[in-house]
Amino acid sequence: MRMVDLIAKTRDHQALTTEEVQWLVQNYVTKKVPDYQMSAWLMAVYFNGLSDREQGDLAQAMLDSGEKLDLSAIPGIKVDKHSTGGVGDKLSLPLVPLVACLGIAVPMVSGRGLGFTGGTLDKLESIPGFNVNLTTAEFSHQVSMIRQAITSASQDLAPADRRLYALRDVTGTVASKPLIASSIMSKKLASGTDALLFDVKSGNGAFMPDDEAAEGLAKALLAIAAQAGVKAVAMITDMNQPLGITIGNSLEVAESIAVIKGRGPQDVHQLLVMQAAQMLVLGGKTASLEVATGMVEDALRDGRAAKAFKQLIQAQGGDSRVVDDPRRLPQATHKVTVTATTAGTVLAMDTKALGVAVMQLGGGRAMQDDQLDLTAGLVLHKKVGTPVQPGETLAVAYASAADPATVVESVRAAYTIGDAPIKKLSLIHRILS
Amino acid sequence: MRMVDLIAKTRDHQALTTEEVQWLVQNYVTKKVPDYQMSAWLMAVYFNGLSDREQGDLAQAMLDSGEKLDLSAIPGIKVDKHSTGGVGDKLSLPLVPLVACLGIAVPMVSGRGLGFTGGTLDKLESIPGFNVNLTTAEFSHQVSMIRQAITSASQDLAPADRRLYALRDVTGTVASKPLIASSIMSKKLASGTDALLFDVKSGNGAFMPDDEAAEGLAKALLAIAAQAGVKAVAMITDMNQPLGITIGNSLEVAESIAVIKGRGPQDVHQLLVMQAAQMLVLGGKTASLEVATGMVEDALRDGRAAKAFKQLIQAQGGDSRVVDDPRRLPQATHKVTVTATTAGTVLAMDTKALGVAVMQLGGGRAMQDDQLDLTAGLVLHKKVGTPVQPGETLAVAYASAADPATVVESVRAAYTIGDAPIKKLSLIHRILS
Repeated sequence: MRMVDLIAKTRDHQALTTEEVQWLVQNYVTKKVPDYQMSAWLMAVYFNGLSDREQGDLAQAMLDSGEKLDLSAIPGIKVDKHSTGGVGDKLSLPLVPLVACLGIAVPMVSGRGLGFTGGTLDKLESIPGFNVNLTTAEFSHQVSMIRQAITSASQDLAPADRRLYALRDVTGTVASKPLIASSIMSKKLASGTDALLFDVKSGNGAFMPDDEAAEGLAKALLAIAAQAGVKAVAMITDMNQPLGITIGNSLEVAESIAVIKGRGPQDVHQLLVMQAAQMLVLGGKTASLEVATGMVEDALRDGRAAKAFKQLIQAQGGDSRVVDDPRRLPQATHKVTVTATTAGTVLAMDTKALGVAVMQLGGGRAMQDDQLDLTAGLVLHKKVGTPVQPGETLAVAYASAADPATVVESVRAAYTIGDAPIKKLSLIHRILS
Repeated sequence: MRMVDLIAKTRDHQALTTEEVQWLVQNYVTKKVPDYQMSAWLMAVYFNGLSDREQGDLAQAMLDSGEKLDLSAIPGIKVDKHSTGGVGDKLSLPLVPLVACLGIAVPMVSGRGLGFTGGTLDKLESIPGFNVNLTTAEFSHQVSMIRQAITSASQDLAPADRRLYALRDVTGTVASKPLIASSIMSKKLASGTDALLFDVKSGNGAFMPDDEAAEGLAKALLAIAAQAGVKAVAMITDMNQPLGITIGNSLEVAESIAVIKGRGPQDVHQLLVMQAAQMLVLGGKTASLEVATGMVEDALRDGRAAKAFKQLIQAQGGDSRVVDDPRRLPQATHKVTVTATTAGTVLAMDTKALGVAVMQLGGGRAMQDDQLDLTAGLVLHKKVGTPVQPGETLAVAYASAADPATVVESVRAAYTIGDAPIKKLSLIHRILS
């Protein structure tokens, strides 16, 4: 087999065989296929795509390049969730303990933020002492003891994906649906989960700008999951405004604590309940989403979810007192209020611009090695559909290292205020399975 | 400037500026842009193409990466020819001395064969002693003395193109019109010529399978020439059967000798006269193709062309006695006759398959470093339109190292013999300028 022939096949819209995909990944890992051939292939994939079967083969081959957690000793159906990333999306934090406290094991392998989106691991590190780098032994043990764990992907997990992603990053081949889908799935399958909930974000603060693109990615993810024998459901959810009222690591943990106590903003609460209910059904707790929704609401109301969150924090070395006293989270030393200059209704928000503003304040990374200011971020006082008067607060910007005044203009510009009638943004656009 | 941004521009159909193209080539040559980024860009070009202006910029930037011959001290308009490569295309051998003997200087930088097509340099090396590796000083001096020289491209000529071509060869990005055109032009412009005749081959024995593809390449070449201030004409000529009656290095030299004495096959003679006449007009000898044609026919008839060919051979160290006695050329030790098994007319020839058969006999290279058997090749007794009886000779296969019997079946299979009416193949499909 010659790599140049495989490049030509993909370039000419001919599907690679399963054996060819395996050969390609294996020989890339052992450096027999050089980067310059792989990057040409990646660009051919960018233009021509891959069939569902090829995507499944690619995810499987990348998975096979590393170790795979075996959680089969833990009874029951293990269920994980993956979000494609958005602005203010802190769902994983309350979701994992909420589902775990209802009897479903959640082994979550998560990531860090890059660009305008945040990452679950960064948020968790706002909690003093929280260790997101579990060994595979620690991870398995914790899931078996308390049914929940959130960790970074170890170096041994799908190393082919790690190298491929680094190559895609410098060759203009990141934004390719089949490459995104197989990359996600190679890591998710390695975590040993039996079922998966996908939250595919759609809108001006997501990688997929509209539902058509989001649906394409969702279908690719579902097809790979099916090929791997993993039960899966995909939700396409709104990212035309930030989720909840906070953006930024420490601020989002505080919001997550409010949410898990049943006192969070309505949109985060609603999405959390829907996602948790879907995961209960995937985990076989009940076949009825309605019954599952009731179970979830109860656990939020009666404090079981909050208690499970404390358990999670303790198990990973964090200071669980933050749940009762969120002021123990790192607090910004500076804040600046962004006020409205015109009257009207918030017609739209440039969600990505708000994510970029938080990044500029130090709350996100432009480059993989950037250090974060965990206290940096935004608290949104107005969202889409809210009436506004001149002088009223739109948002408050927080930071400890940077000067929050630097983002006032860009945050204000991210709000479109006017008098046109607006259509309420629906939170959940579509559910596919 | 970042290479990943230039890749993204080409990927997204945005034209690169002249400065960006220069940056890309210069930084590739100095290895600041790595192969893996260049190959991703090349694949993006494969899919999206380049504008005429970008192609011109690319050719110019590659040209600027090396030395450029300055032939301005030699009086008159220097005219060169480039063929895109075909099977049995030995035109350069008689053409260079023919044009030179009529007062036009021809500084030709030529190449070797690869795959199913032959190369002028290999053919010339069949002449005992012929040196195709002239230094730039030797090349300029010879052109100034006898108005003709044929040499390989020195390492210092368009080195960026040399590296890019090697990368394209292993990344599935050879067959890209803008990359082919700018590669050709970077070398042709470096030879210091003032005018160029392009012979773009079209058909089943050419890289361009039909006139539409050939015309696309011809237009790209003409556009780059115009941008570089070089006068040019492009002929699209037939490659749906081999040119002449021989394929293979030594055999094609013998045929070239016959042609330059005015005794060659009709198709080679006709194309030679047309090309030489075009070059005389490009060189300013006359504005009339008809007058030029008369001059060319005279030079072939009265022996001036043959004498100039001897001069060329002598100047480059070869044994010019081969012109009077072609038996001095290397002769094959083995031959096998391929006979027809059915009656009818030759309706079509698989030209590429015949080129591949000669390659398999040792007359061409599968890989760049393969050693050639200069005696290996085919003499065609039947071509398209000829009637055939069972048992009649279709072709004779020659070789000294390989067994010519090994290609009998593939040569026979390359002939389509039947009774359908056929349309005569026209030799010259189109002329563009």
